[in-house]
Amino acid sequence: MRSAYDDLSAHLRAAALLGSTAALLAWDQETFMPKGAGDVRADQLALLAQLQHERATDPRVGAWLAACDADPRPQLDLDQRANVVGWRRDFDRATKLPSALVAELAQLESKAQQAWVQARHKNSFARFQPWLERMVALHQQKADCLRAPGQSRWDALADLYEPGMCAKDLRSLFGPLRQRLVALRERLTAGRLVDDSFSRVVIAEPQQEAFVRAVVTAMGFDFSCGRIDRSAHPFCTRVGADVRLTTRFHRDRVLDALGSTMHEGGHGLYEQGLEPAHLGTPLGEAVSLGIHESQSRLWENHVGRSAAFWQWCWPQAQHHLGSACAGHDAATVFAAANVVRPSLIRVEADEATYDLHVMVRFELEQQLIDGELAVANLPSEWNRLYREFLGIEVPDDRSGCLQDVHWSCGLFGYFPTYTLGNLYAAQFAAAADRELGGLGPLLARGQFTTLREWLRRHIHRHGRRHTPAELCRLVTGSPLSPEPFLHHLESKLGGVYAVSSSR
Amino acid sequence: MRSAYDDLSAHLRAAALLGSTAALLAWDQETFMPKGAGDVRADQLALLAQLQHERATDPRVGAWLAACDADPRPQLDLDQRANVVGWRRDFDRATKLPSALVAELAQLESKAQQAWVQARHKNSFARFQPWLERMVALHQQKADCLRAPGQSRWDALADLYEPGMCAKDLRSLFGPLRQRLVALRERLTAGRLVDDSFSRVVIAEPQQEAFVRAVVTAMGFDFSCGRIDRSAHPFCTRVGADVRLTTRFHRDRVLDALGSTMHEGGHGLYEQGLEPAHLGTPLGEAVSLGIHESQSRLWENHVGRSAAFWQWCWPQAQHHLGSACAGHDAATVFAAANVVRPSLIRVEADEATYDLHVMVRFELEQQLIDGELAVANLPSEWNRLYREFLGIEVPDDRSGCLQDVHWSCGLFGYFPTYTLGNLYAAQFAAAADRELGGLGPLLARGQFTTLREWLRRHIHRHGRRHTPAELCRLVTGSPLSPEPFLHHLESKLGGVYAVSSSR
Repeated sequence: MRSAYDDLSAHLRAAALLGSTAALLAWDQETFMPKGAGDVRADQLALLAQLQHERATDPRVGAWLAACDADPRPQLDLDQRANVVGWRRDFDRATKLPSALVAELAQLESKAQQAWVQARHKNSFARFQPWLERMVALHQQKADCLRAPGQSRWDALADLYEPGMCAKDLRSLFGPLRQRLVALRERLTAGRLVDDSFSRVVIAEPQQEAFVRAVVTAMGFDFSCGRIDRSAHPFCTRVGADVRLTTRFHRDRVLDALGSTMHEGGHGLYEQGLEPAHLGTPLGEAVSLGIHESQSRLWENHVGRSAAFWQWCWPQAQHHLGSACAGHDAATVFAAANVVRPSLIRVEADEATYDLHVMVRFELEQQLIDGELAVANLPSEWNRLYREFLGIEVPDDRSGCLQDVHWSCGLFGYFPTYTLGNLYAAQFAAAADRELGGLGPLLARGQFTTLREWLRRHIHRHGRRHTPAELCRLVTGSPLSPEPFLHHLESKLGGVYAVSSSR
Repeated sequence: MRSAYDDLSAHLRAAALLGSTAALLAWDQETFMPKGAGDVRADQLALLAQLQHERATDPRVGAWLAACDADPRPQLDLDQRANVVGWRRDFDRATKLPSALVAELAQLESKAQQAWVQARHKNSFARFQPWLERMVALHQQKADCLRAPGQSRWDALADLYEPGMCAKDLRSLFGPLRQRLVALRERLTAGRLVDDSFSRVVIAEPQQEAFVRAVVTAMGFDFSCGRIDRSAHPFCTRVGADVRLTTRFHRDRVLDALGSTMHEGGHGLYEQGLEPAHLGTPLGEAVSLGIHESQSRLWENHVGRSAAFWQWCWPQAQHHLGSACAGHDAATVFAAANVVRPSLIRVEADEATYDLHVMVRFELEQQLIDGELAVANLPSEWNRLYREFLGIEVPDDRSGCLQDVHWSCGLFGYFPTYTLGNLYAAQFAAAADRELGGLGPLLARGQFTTLREWLRRHIHRHGRRHTPAELCRLVTGSPLSPEPFLHHLESKLGGVYAVSSSR
């Protein structure tokens, strides 16, 4: 006899298929779609989103969930119970938002994003201000629909991206982190100059592409269920059973292409490490954006910016990039990949200052959503915090508070997941280092699949079985702490800035 | 006040958006999808087909159609009335198929196609046989749902592709056609040898690609709403507002790449010539596969295999293909493009024997669907008819009955539309020649857009306004006849085989 669980599972697997079909529409839009097809593509995406939402909020889902919960017999196994918990969370969240608000948000987000593109192009915050004001107001309404008694608005929004995350916990992580990062930044920038000329060598795109493909292949990315293409902004998406990365190439930024590819490759390995049998259920989904980001940061920074990695990688680089490598060696390129230079743009930031960019946004979006900061005052506050955290002056809003797409498309509470990703990555890397008898020798020999298997076993295959906090404790034996990240940065960058040649 | 027509139109436009989303899933499957994603892709396609079918068969559609028909006031304009007629045909057809059968067919088709790929690769009909048996059985069920009293199963299926087509009418067209084509084949193959060495010159793929892109651009294909990619089997599909062609390259078959690209380009021009304002309604859809094929054949054969075209094209070939052109000229390449040589593979067949391949399939699929031929006996019957119609022995099933994708994806009743396309193409080309004061001078000057505009005005922009038979009469003044096609072939090939150098 068909159980409530079977009905629920079949119904929501179909919703997941609609989601992965929408993912193909979105992937195609960013990679291969001819430019004249944009309007119809928006209609296709809107229709799929509507169908998926209707299915997710179908009242029968509530009834099936209640039947699963009420069943006194222990008919569901542990996997099934974990899926019911995940589906319950998704259903409660989806049904808390009135469809009128969902529709209003969708329309406003589309227009606000277009206004943001214009405003950034014109370097005019005034053009964006009314849209951001409306976005903040509607997201306050959204938060009021979502929040539990006593929960703050910002916490209710942030929980969408990182289950269980709240501003209070983040402040206790971010406080000491900021102090130590500012101190590190001051120490390093007062010191020697590192030769980063390899970052600017001109290299033809086909050579760069062959190089980054060789690296992501060595990482263990499975091309029988995956691909890499080009897009203006690199991303990783799952389209059903396959996982698609994009990257980008500039003729004089090979390390940017490598970093982007390893970053998206890390996301891709997480997606490929989820259990195929659980596809379309919570156990077949990533647990949070912070954990997802930990996987990309681990491969981008703990592998790709390590001295050991470059021992293996330099001969690969020489093979694929040829004469561009003349005059450089593994040690100088390792140093070039680790230059610290406070800058204006988050997505171009180095490993040591990146989180200071995130903290600026974390402070400001809390104040916006809690009504403590008027949108009109955002630029001056932004610029003040950049002075305080990064020690630099913001010359204009295009390089300041207009640089990110996030708030224009409603992603409030999202930015801290980037820093959580960095902290989780360091703590996971330290655990892997202990358990695998030292990561360095493995990376130097190019044995990346040993690390991939460790990550798969300890993190990927669990899907949403545990909360991010539980997962961290299970994998590393400790709650999340900024110490492994700070230790990693201070020790590596201290070394780079002591041993590198000055010029 | 919103009318029944408005409701109907909005409802079925959404169904069309689901259809174009499914087209993207299918396009991606043939071009870029990693091979490990096939099972989930089958599920995605099945779900979309099911949702589209549910929407198309929604009882409200019937009520809205009845309201449109019953409305005594002349509120609908001619376009709207034409759409109502088209929607009525689609609704009546769709409501005859149970949703469960539609979903089962969609899933089986996706899997059978993958099985066919494997079977062909292994040259093993036995691996495909159980899939084909299941396909035939399900299509017999489908035909039984669709057929009118007294209509044969095969006619019911064929009507899906060519409204109004039936086996009886086809036999009266095909009978004399086969006699004259067999006689022509015997006459030409007993005669001189034409030098077709240009067909086998080795040319690197990037040069071939630049060449065929230049030709399709000159044809007037709009890349702002279109693209060309590679796939194992060339095809053309619409993905919403954009139209996508695929082609293929072999190092020593540049004329094959050119022919395939012009062929798909002809399909693409038809799709791009439909009125954008009618997108998602019957007036924005192609009228039949036979008419669609007429557009591809017209460009492939009446343009691309004409002496006038090669006057324009030869300098293009020299520019893009360079030294590969040495020792050839426009006249010898025109002759090389028109060599007649009975062969095993339909898609590689010449213009004079192509339709004999189609007639083999026409005979066999009628017998399969009508239950007169067991699937197990298909290879031997196939081989027997090849001997009779084409005068050649089939060495293995890979070159025989496993060569075509069609039956593996449920296209029974489809093959004859290729020959109808050839007949329509010749009759349309003769009409254009009369009305434009001779096609030859236009083609020799590369003024392809004059022809494209003529086709757009007389054929493309009408969508499904007329039946194929009506359209033929409107465009050419006569019902469909094999005579223009036979006249075209006999006169051109008689010339080629008389004037070409023998060796």
